[in-house]
Amino acid sequence: MVTSPVVNTYPLSSYTFGTKEPKMEKDTSVADRLARMKVNYMKEGMRTSVEAILLVQEHNHPHILLLQIGNTFCKLPGGRLKPGENEIEGLKRKLTSKLGANSPTLVPDWQIGECVAIWWRPNFETIMYPYCPPHITKPKCKKLFLVHLSEREYFAVPKNLKLLAVPLFELYDNVQRYGPVISTIPQQLSRFQFNMITT
Amino acid sequence: MVTSPVVNTYPLSSYTFGTKEPKMEKDTSVADRLARMKVNYMKEGMRTSVEAILLVQEHNHPHILLLQIGNTFCKLPGGRLKPGENEIEGLKRKLTSKLGANSPTLVPDWQIGECVAIWWRPNFETIMYPYCPPHITKPKCKKLFLVHLSEREYFAVPKNLKLLAVPLFELYDNVQRYGPVISTIPQQLSRFQFNMITT
Repeated sequence: MVTSPVVNTYPLSSYTFGTKEPKMEKDTSVADRLARMKVNYMKEGMRTSVEAILLVQEHNHPHILLLQIGNTFCKLPGGRLKPGENEIEGLKRKLTSKLGANSPTLVPDWQIGECVAIWWRPNFETIMYPYCPPHITKPKCKKLFLVHLSEREYFAVPKNLKLLAVPLFELYDNVQRYGPVISTIPQQLSRFQFNMITT
Repeated sequence: MVTSPVVNTYPLSSYTFGTKEPKMEKDTSVADRLARMKVNYMKEGMRTSVEAILLVQEHNHPHILLLQIGNTFCKLPGGRLKPGENEIEGLKRKLTSKLGANSPTLVPDWQIGECVAIWWRPNFETIMYPYCPPHITKPKCKKLFLVHLSEREYFAVPKNLKLLAVPLFELYDNVQRYGPVISTIPQQLSRFQFNMITT
C-alpha cells in the first residue's frame, strides 16, 4: 500500500497562549489594501505571500489555528515576503512576528513542512485561483505550508486578535464563513495521515 | 525557494483515442449501487476505491481526462480494489480495464504518481468527507492518484462512454456540475508545477 505522509498532532491543551502588543492591520478596508499592494508592486515588483497551517487536535479530530480579527474575519498566520527573501525564512519571520513571544528563548523553532497549496491572484483583485489563470503573465502567488509543531509551545497572541482552533469539519464546505482558501484546507490535507497524540 | 513537484503535460493531440466494447455500469441507480456496496461489504469487508487523475494540456492550461456516462455524469477512471489488492496494481488494472486497448502491447505503461487526495465515506451513503469523520470506526476510502502520462499513448474508450478533457478552470468552483470530489481537484493540484510541453 502507498504510505501517506504522517503529521503528529498534539492536544490544544499542550500549548500555552499568552498575549502581546496589538498587531494592527495596515489597511482599514479591502480597497485600501489593494491600493497599497499596487503601490508596493510598482516599487518592489511581485511579492509572494506565505501562510502557515498549524495543527492541533481535540477529541481526536484535527484543528487548525486561525487568527480572528474583529468578530468575523479569520486568517492564517503569515504574510508577504520581502523582495528576494527565502520562503521558509520569510514564513518563520512572519510566524514569529504574529505568534512569537517578545523573548527570543520562548519563540518556537518553527518546522516548516510541505507546501500544500498555491493560489494565484491575476491582478490587484481580491479573487484568487488554485491555478495560474490562462493569459496572465505576472500573477501574484500565495503559498500555504504545513508547519509541524512540537509537543509544547508558547504562543504570544497580539491583543487585538483571537487565536482560534477550528476543526476541519467546521472549515469543510464553509466558503461563506472562511472564504475559498481556508475552506478547502481539509481537501488539501486529506492525503496526510494524522497521528493524534493524546498525552 | 521551495521547489514544487513537476508534472509534464503533453498536448491532447499527442494522444490517440480508439473505441472498444461498452463497459456498462453495474447498477442502474444510486440506490441500487449503495445496496450492492452493502452486500459486498458483508461478504468482503471494507474495500478502497482508487481513481486516476490523467493530465493533458490545451492552450497551455492543464486539462483532466474524465469519463462521461450519458449526458451529464462524469467520473475519474478507476474503481474498487479486490480484497488484499495493492493500491498501485489495482489502479493499473482498473485503468487498463477502462482505457486500455484489448491488445496488451498497446496498453499504456501506467506511471502511478502522488496520492493527491483521500475521501472518506462514513457508511453506505453517497456523501464523502476529506477527513475521517469523528466517531466513525470503519470508514470506506477513495484515493486519488496523479498518473504521469508519456508523450504518446493509445486509449481505447468503451463505446458507451465519452472521454472528455476538462480544463481546471471549468472544474474549479463547479460543485453543481462535477460534485465535491472532482470540483476540488484544482486545489489539490495547485502545489504542482506543470511543465507544459507543446511539441
